[in-house]
Amino acid sequence: MNAGRLQESVTIRLSHSDAAGVIFFPNAFMLEQESFERWLEGGGILLREMLEGMLAPTPVVHCEADFSCPVRVGDRVVMRLAGVGVGETSFTLAWAMELGGRVAIAVRVRRVSVDPASGRAIGLPERLRTLLAASQAATSTIS
Amino acid sequence: MNAGRLQESVTIRLSHSDAAGVIFFPNAFMLEQESFERWLEGGGILLREMLEGMLAPTPVVHCEADFSCPVRVGDRVVMRLAGVGVGETSFTLAWAMELGGRVAIAVRVRRVSVDPASGRAIGLPERLRTLLAASQAATSTIS
Amino acid sequence: MNAGRLQESVTIRLSHSDAAGVIFFPNAFMLEQESFERWLEGGGILLREMLEGMLAPTPVVHCEADFSCPVRVGDRVVMRLAGVGVGETSFTLAWAMELGGRVAIAVRVRRVSVDPASGRAIGLPERLRTLLAASQAATSTIS
Amino acid sequence: MNAGRLQESVTIRLSHSDAAGVIFFPNAFMLEQESFERWLEGGGILLREMLEGMLAPTPVVHCEADFSCPVRVGDRVVMRLAGVGVGETSFTLAWAMELGGRVAIAVRVRRVSVDPASGRAIGLPERLRTLLAASQAATSTIS
Repeated sequence: MNAGRLQESVTIRLSHSDAAGVIFFPNAFMLEQESFERWLEGGGILLREMLEGMLAPTPVVHCEADFSCPVRVGDRVVMRLAGVGVGETSFTLAWAMELGGRVAIAVRVRRVSVDPASGRAIGLPERLRTLLAASQAATSTIS
Repeated sequence: MNAGRLQESVTIRLSHSDAAGVIFFPNAFMLEQESFERWLEGGGILLREMLEGMLAPTPVVHCEADFSCPVRVGDRVVMRLAGVGVGETSFTLAWAMELGGRVAIAVRVRRVSVDPASGRAIGLPERLRTLLAASQAATSTIS
Repeated sequence: MNAGRLQESVTIRLSHSDAAGVIFFPNAFMLEQESFERWLEGGGILLREMLEGMLAPTPVVHCEADFSCPVRVGDRVVMRLAGVGVGETSFTLAWAMELGGRVAIAVRVRRVSVDPASGRAIGLPERLRTLLAASQAATSTIS
Repeated sequence: MNAGRLQESVTIRLSHSDAAGVIFFPNAFMLEQESFERWLEGGGILLREMLEGMLAPTPVVHCEADFSCPVRVGDRVVMRLAGVGVGETSFTLAWAMELGGRVAIAVRVRRVSVDPASGRAIGLPERLRTLLAASQAATSTIS
């Protein structure tokens, strides 16, 4: 069972930064979204399938982040999937952005599977559920 | 006592959107940051003072958002400061992004006042504390 | 004849900046797009009409910018439509971002009107042509 | 002589897109900046050295892009350094973003080496000049 891509190295770029010299805080979520897309791909799912209506899209319903120490341009952070929560119609991914062995930014995003026509929550597609189960087994279970 | 700018109308632009046709979720925080800067200005504080070291900068330590319904390009949302929390060294602003009378996106951001040299948390500057108190009195108290 | 909104004041925000302390250069175009949308609105045209297929969309086919002096967070620039070029199927808007009376950034964007189904260039919609003519008369003619 | 990283594959992400379903045009420059940073790294130069004043920073003075066909989320484009121009104090990089063998977006960016203190143009640092010469020899010479 493929657990997708659970860890990757990401270099902080000028485009992620702001005039305070650190990562512009909303960009923690931009990076999460990029890792999410690669995680999906690792599990054989393309975001494009969701955009084109072949797979139920999964809009974000909740997201949060905790910032523990400054992350600067040129820093190479390890983006690590730290935990997975699975519900009937939604799932949560918890990511740790690690710098020098400690968690610099912790990000948590909950997405819900929706029917493209009505916009109402529907059960998670089987392929996604399989990927989530494998990733949860390889990391940890969160609520 | 000036409570800053507690409410404003914001039009969702193409730059805020993504291929799903709605606001790209990290941009809820980008909009919060822009309203935060205007709120500061309404209270006589310039972000630039923080960037240039004349006032303690206030990096974000926690942020979260809840998305209740899709927000699209052209939508005019009301960005309303809904609550203020004040601690010794940190403060929290809760914002409601309202669309058609209901809260489409709720955003909450906690910032901490830091010493620019050491990066350690320090007491909130008096001017900021005054603005926070006025804004809290005009909205509501949150933890 | 309404010439749209030909000039506006824009404050540079943290979200526009990068770790070099100035506007992140691609954001000059993001600001152009926002002024473009407000210019359209001033002329009674909503970008949303283009996105929803009621009016031919106008994707960018060429853009360029010249940067003359640093623009920083907190700077209030005047975004001024400086010139308009009109072709059969495309149009060009030239903008001057002025700071302290001089042009800090000059931006030029050419958009082409396309048929949403085929993606092929088509004649500019009449309403847009009217707005362009009025704006050109109020500014200057460029190629 | 190391010519840096002259070509790489880049997947278009949701973060690059807009509600028209294609890459948001300013993001062509964001992608250029990221490839520029990796090209520098391939040549042993870190952007951070410029940000921290150990190497003359190179702000953008001119940029332009031509868009030939739509680029969508999930598209894997080849970002290829197509040409290099070298002056006394400035240099130009021309990039081709290729999709399915044709150039979808052509980007050209001119950066100038400046003295961090005065902001005035200065001769290109030797290390950068060496990298530019090698890259020019491996691609083509542009003005």
